[in-house]
Amino acid sequence: MKPRRTQKKTDQASQRRSPCPIACGLDLFGDKWTMLVIRDLALGKTSFKDFATGPEHIPTNILSDRLTRLLDHDMIGQAPVEGDGRRLAYHLTPKGAALRPVLLALRDWGLEWIEGTAAKRA
Amino acid sequence: MKPRRTQKKTDQASQRRSPCPIACGLDLFGDKWTMLVIRDLALGKTSFKDFATGPEHIPTNILSDRLTRLLDHDMIGQAPVEGDGRRLAYHLTPKGAALRPVLLALRDWGLEWIEGTAAKRA
Repeated sequence: MKPRRTQKKTDQASQRRSPCPIACGLDLFGDKWTMLVIRDLALGKTSFKDFATGPEHIPTNILSDRLTRLLDHDMIGQAPVEGDGRRLAYHLTPKGAALRPVLLALRDWGLEWIEGTAAKRA
Repeated sequence: MKPRRTQKKTDQASQRRSPCPIACGLDLFGDKWTMLVIRDLALGKTSFKDFATGPEHIPTNILSDRLTRLLDHDMIGQAPVEGDGRRLAYHLTPKGAALRPVLLALRDWGLEWIEGTAAKRA
């Protein structure tokens, strides 16, 4: 019924480095940028421009790539903006929003162990 | 007194993408491999060979690079093996061990959201 999805799943499983849940997660967001996009979404940012103009200055080609990957893996979605149906806003899906404990643990570690860091909100 | 260390700290701060604790953490371990080395240490592995022969088959040049970086940032240490003073074993420092909540959050997310993953121990 959904051969394409099944194929994709099989491909994903065969491309895994191991069945370790940590390794599999890192295959999706184990890079310098992806978790910052997740962070921005968790903090209420919704547009490509919002992400691109963040303090870390993510290169737009990398941003495009990461958004595509997150969409492909159902970690983010896109929906028309209320009141302006022509614009689309990004949002976290339940799968993406479930990374909140990871974000919080990363934030807490950085605040504790890296001098001069500051969190945007508690 | 410790000009080199001070210099290093200044360099680190100036190379930061932002003061965000998450971004600063990802500057240290935001890649596909570093957290797997932390994971292995948390699970009791201690030697280069232990890490290199893991299920993910980390390339040894990448492993060397990541171990050096972790040592440089006081996230891991090396000490003589008890009973065999010629061999050195790696261990997590308090700073590295403090990543445990990150590991656990990553593990829980993967177990929940990525089909077919399994944790080595609860």
